[in-house]
Amino acid sequence: MSKPWQVVGIGNAIVDVLTQIEDSFLTENGVERGIMQLIDRDRAVELYSKMGPAREISGGSAANTIAGLAALGTRTAYVGKVKDDQLGEIFAHDMRAQGAGFETPLAPKDHEHETGRCMVLVSPDSERSMNTYLGVSEFLGPDDIDEHQMAGADWIFLEGYRFDGPDSVAAFAKAIRATKAAQGKVGITLSDPFCVERHRDEFLRMIRSDVDLLVANEHELKSLYQTDDLDAAMRSAQVDVPATACTVGGKGAHILAGDLHEHVPAEAVNVVDATGAGDLFVSGLMYGMTTGRDWKTCLRMGCVAAGEVISHIGARPEADLRELMAKEGMLAG
Amino acid sequence: MSKPWQVVGIGNAIVDVLTQIEDSFLTENGVERGIMQLIDRDRAVELYSKMGPAREISGGSAANTIAGLAALGTRTAYVGKVKDDQLGEIFAHDMRAQGAGFETPLAPKDHEHETGRCMVLVSPDSERSMNTYLGVSEFLGPDDIDEHQMAGADWIFLEGYRFDGPDSVAAFAKAIRATKAAQGKVGITLSDPFCVERHRDEFLRMIRSDVDLLVANEHELKSLYQTDDLDAAMRSAQVDVPATACTVGGKGAHILAGDLHEHVPAEAVNVVDATGAGDLFVSGLMYGMTTGRDWKTCLRMGCVAAGEVISHIGARPEADLRELMAKEGMLAG
Repeated sequence: MSKPWQVVGIGNAIVDVLTQIEDSFLTENGVERGIMQLIDRDRAVELYSKMGPAREISGGSAANTIAGLAALGTRTAYVGKVKDDQLGEIFAHDMRAQGAGFETPLAPKDHEHETGRCMVLVSPDSERSMNTYLGVSEFLGPDDIDEHQMAGADWIFLEGYRFDGPDSVAAFAKAIRATKAAQGKVGITLSDPFCVERHRDEFLRMIRSDVDLLVANEHELKSLYQTDDLDAAMRSAQVDVPATACTVGGKGAHILAGDLHEHVPAEAVNVVDATGAGDLFVSGLMYGMTTGRDWKTCLRMGCVAAGEVISHIGARPEADLRELMAKEGMLAG
Repeated sequence: MSKPWQVVGIGNAIVDVLTQIEDSFLTENGVERGIMQLIDRDRAVELYSKMGPAREISGGSAANTIAGLAALGTRTAYVGKVKDDQLGEIFAHDMRAQGAGFETPLAPKDHEHETGRCMVLVSPDSERSMNTYLGVSEFLGPDDIDEHQMAGADWIFLEGYRFDGPDSVAAFAKAIRATKAAQGKVGITLSDPFCVERHRDEFLRMIRSDVDLLVANEHELKSLYQTDDLDAAMRSAQVDVPATACTVGGKGAHILAGDLHEHVPAEAVNVVDATGAGDLFVSGLMYGMTTGRDWKTCLRMGCVAAGEVISHIGARPEADLRELMAKEGMLAG
């Protein structure tokens, strides 16, 4: 009998606030280009007051992955903390409207923080620089993890970013325990090279003991293994984890699984906003895995989904991902 | 000495909630295609629960016009009512970040309604069907009109939609009185044929006594004068108002001013989302007027601004409008 969920994602529930900027805005405001920076509420207010008109689109790394999987028809659910406020309502709506389950208890109206948001500054060359005020998403704890849901999941997928904040490691440990006890599998993304810096030991321990699928980009993987040599980092991951998917930006992605090492090139698309590329890569990859594709097809599906999301503003899919995959012969049309 | 404001807009302060739909969604949910329907909070909750993932972008008809004028470098301000809540904060930020003044007192946190929103359902052919929960925007009243600001405006621009709701006519009357007393001029858009239906007598009275610039699309103008003959409607407007701009969708726009009647064709663009076309047409038109262009150039500027906003999702300008006008030789590059 199949389990109720194919993939359950756990991460920071965030609404993205996206605006296009000139690179001079980054230097003038001390924003580092191309990475995610955690900011506090005061800095969030300051930066928001300086940035131009924006649009709000639900985001959050694992949430984007789950939205992509749901759009592909995968049975999914998401676990992340929003508040009972307007942005929380928007986040919950967008997740459920995409077809994903979302039942994490809301932080109450009188919580001192609000629903988290990420100011995404998109440069003319489409690179994005992210400034995240975690808000209540930081307070996801073990009580928010439903062990029955975890036991009912073929896969759980954990967001590396969630290693920031109290109770997060305990929440992940509870989720992993319940999943593994029911023969489920665990995927994780390293999220960000600086996030890896902050939590390297914890990442390595978890990866070596519990993780079945590791996802990282080249910078994160090199940071994890403290090497400048991507091949060396990939060989280390190949030893540590049953399967590692490593994205290499415009050059596509690698998969390492046992003795196998495959590479596929990226999709040729007009890049508008790189936000969500890695997240949607995971959607395509895990869609392939949960439907029994060979590794190369899984990678190609990841690249198609990533290619869609970078062709427009925002980190949630807009076009029909199944149709795009059908066009490339990966799915019956 | 020039006045502090070139154009002050007054209207419903609204955040748009935009999603793409198939037309079957409209029939299944009793939404009339291509127009604006006012809905109450229960209907807003119901419709939102049924619609897909969305994105939030500040909207409101006159607010879009003012945002476009501000983007063009016009000295502008906006008057409209939002609440002290997250959507209100987004609306205020986007207006000020665009360079427009916005000082209307916020409805307090304990107000029974929230900041207004409009669920914009975009069909595959780019037509939009709007479902507006006015929220606190409906409660704009005479107390929100700053007579000093009105006296400091070359033009005020009134949104026809604002005729819905208590105190609105009184607020407009106060604004008009203060503006006219200081030799300012009054523009108005009819907003929507059904809005004209609801308030025809009031519109006609105001247009004949106070209005210097009337903006309408063909359907609104025909509704105002209760005729199926657009030429007849335009001739009536020509008698009633010093200047009338009438848009005719993909066929461009007319201007009637005294004995003059000019027409310009629409811009050839790939239409993605028709939301805001009329609003940005007014931005371009009034930018031309406030910078002393001839009527034909004013119309062309209106069509360029409208062409920009329909080429993407959302009713606020994204590309550099001045650059687009420069490309067509209307501005020095």
